[in-house]
Amino acid sequence: MAQELEMENSNEGTLQRLFQRLVAMMSGFLQWLFFTVLSVGPIPNHIAFIMDGNRRYAKSQKLGPGAGHKAGFSSLISILESCYKIGVKYVTVYAFSIDNFKRDPIEVQSIMDLMLEKIDELLKEESIVSSHGIRINFFGNLELLSEPVRMAVAKAMVETAKNTNVVLSVCVAYTSTNEIVHAVQESCREKIAQALLNSKFNCEMRDFERGYNTLSKVDCSITLEDLERHMYLAECPDPDLLIRTSGETRLSNFLLWQTTFCYLHVLDALWPEVSPWWLGWVILHYQRAKPYIDKRMKVL
Amino acid sequence: MAQELEMENSNEGTLQRLFQRLVAMMSGFLQWLFFTVLSVGPIPNHIAFIMDGNRRYAKSQKLGPGAGHKAGFSSLISILESCYKIGVKYVTVYAFSIDNFKRDPIEVQSIMDLMLEKIDELLKEESIVSSHGIRINFFGNLELLSEPVRMAVAKAMVETAKNTNVVLSVCVAYTSTNEIVHAVQESCREKIAQALLNSKFNCEMRDFERGYNTLSKVDCSITLEDLERHMYLAECPDPDLLIRTSGETRLSNFLLWQTTFCYLHVLDALWPEVSPWWLGWVILHYQRAKPYIDKRMKVL
Repeated sequence: MAQELEMENSNEGTLQRLFQRLVAMMSGFLQWLFFTVLSVGPIPNHIAFIMDGNRRYAKSQKLGPGAGHKAGFSSLISILESCYKIGVKYVTVYAFSIDNFKRDPIEVQSIMDLMLEKIDELLKEESIVSSHGIRINFFGNLELLSEPVRMAVAKAMVETAKNTNVVLSVCVAYTSTNEIVHAVQESCREKIAQALLNSKFNCEMRDFERGYNTLSKVDCSITLEDLERHMYLAECPDPDLLIRTSGETRLSNFLLWQTTFCYLHVLDALWPEVSPWWLGWVILHYQRAKPYIDKRMKVL
Repeated sequence: MAQELEMENSNEGTLQRLFQRLVAMMSGFLQWLFFTVLSVGPIPNHIAFIMDGNRRYAKSQKLGPGAGHKAGFSSLISILESCYKIGVKYVTVYAFSIDNFKRDPIEVQSIMDLMLEKIDELLKEESIVSSHGIRINFFGNLELLSEPVRMAVAKAMVETAKNTNVVLSVCVAYTSTNEIVHAVQESCREKIAQALLNSKFNCEMRDFERGYNTLSKVDCSITLEDLERHMYLAECPDPDLLIRTSGETRLSNFLLWQTTFCYLHVLDALWPEVSPWWLGWVILHYQRAKPYIDKRMKVL
């Protein structure tokens, strides 16, 4: 009798596993079908994400501190997989803002530890980075990071610099206003260096008022192009699509300069809840809006 | 018989007029009630509008060129009335972008003519400007405007400068990136002037290398605060709420610097269709989101 029951249980377990596998296969097939249909339409070249809602997710699931961000990282990997599969070339994510340093130091430390751990994982041979040939950039005021994180970030950039397939830009210790100020300062430095060089080569060094004259000719000529050239994200094209999760319609100081004509989409889901289905859904919206956006860009 | 019919018609006309007046009164009363209830909650201090959809409105209503913008101006007046009544102190509107100059010259001219006509109307004694004590500012690269428009704009600013109740900022020949570049150039000019002044007072004029030394000390010290001080909208607080009409979720180069933590709301209606009811509806959303935004600002 006991043996019969055991066999029955074992059969039931096998059936359940088979059923689960079948459901997973069906879901995978449907997702593949959805993305294949999607890829017939225009695919954004560059998608940016404000990954909002990790802490709220942890709270809603009654998870410990840091667990929300861990779940958020898993979401990021699955979203990256889908993006690169469908033909998106650039993905930019807002990982940590300069203002986030004001949070509870224990929380900040746990996020930094997670970052260290995940950078290490990403640089392993079997990771998504090597399978897709991802070049990783970290943008922001990196001097604000602790020594170990700064080293890890530098290592990731150096080790993936040779990859040319796709680009992942991680904004860390970043705010858009800080990026603009940085670009201003770099532009000024460049103009001053140019002015010094010019006066070194072209001017008679004995000109009594030369200092003033050079000074008053410098820098006010900083142009939009100068600033653009010195933005952290200068080497990426502007995003076509910006997705923010957790239902908030604010840019929170992220890529302000680069998203003026970008299609913004707000998802109500928290970041760790976001799946490739959500991504597909947003791309569908983007594809519907695209002809109109293109038309507007032409007749601005 | 004909007399009877005439009387009947006349009675019917009177009844219809009475009914219409009653409906208008009821609607006015309901609107007053709605706004009274709203004003118990937090009211945004500064609302910014991207007034999009004028041309599409004209097209959908089969109106002639320019009629959409005229209808849009009427909408603006009714929205301003409601804003100032409910206690909003600052309203900023995106009237004309630098990129809009690329449109058909006839269309650009008709918008400029309309602007001239409406500025004239606004400066009359019985207008909304005098009844609410509105100070009008025009922000943007005003040098791009034609001579008559530039004169009218200057006149409006001078004549309303004494008003202190509420502020209307009109962004014309404006883009946010142009505003930022302008702020950079002004900051540079200020730094250079300071450097010249310092060296005039403090330096020995015979120092051979002084020119270089002064030059290399200047300008790279431009800070976020310098830029903020030189933004066109420096004297207004940042907007609390940004409303864009016609269903488009893009900022289109409007107040990028000032809206990083602002609540964005996209309305599907075209700008000329927007009524005070729509405004009330958006403020209701803002009030629901406000506690959360405040909490986030604290724990950033």
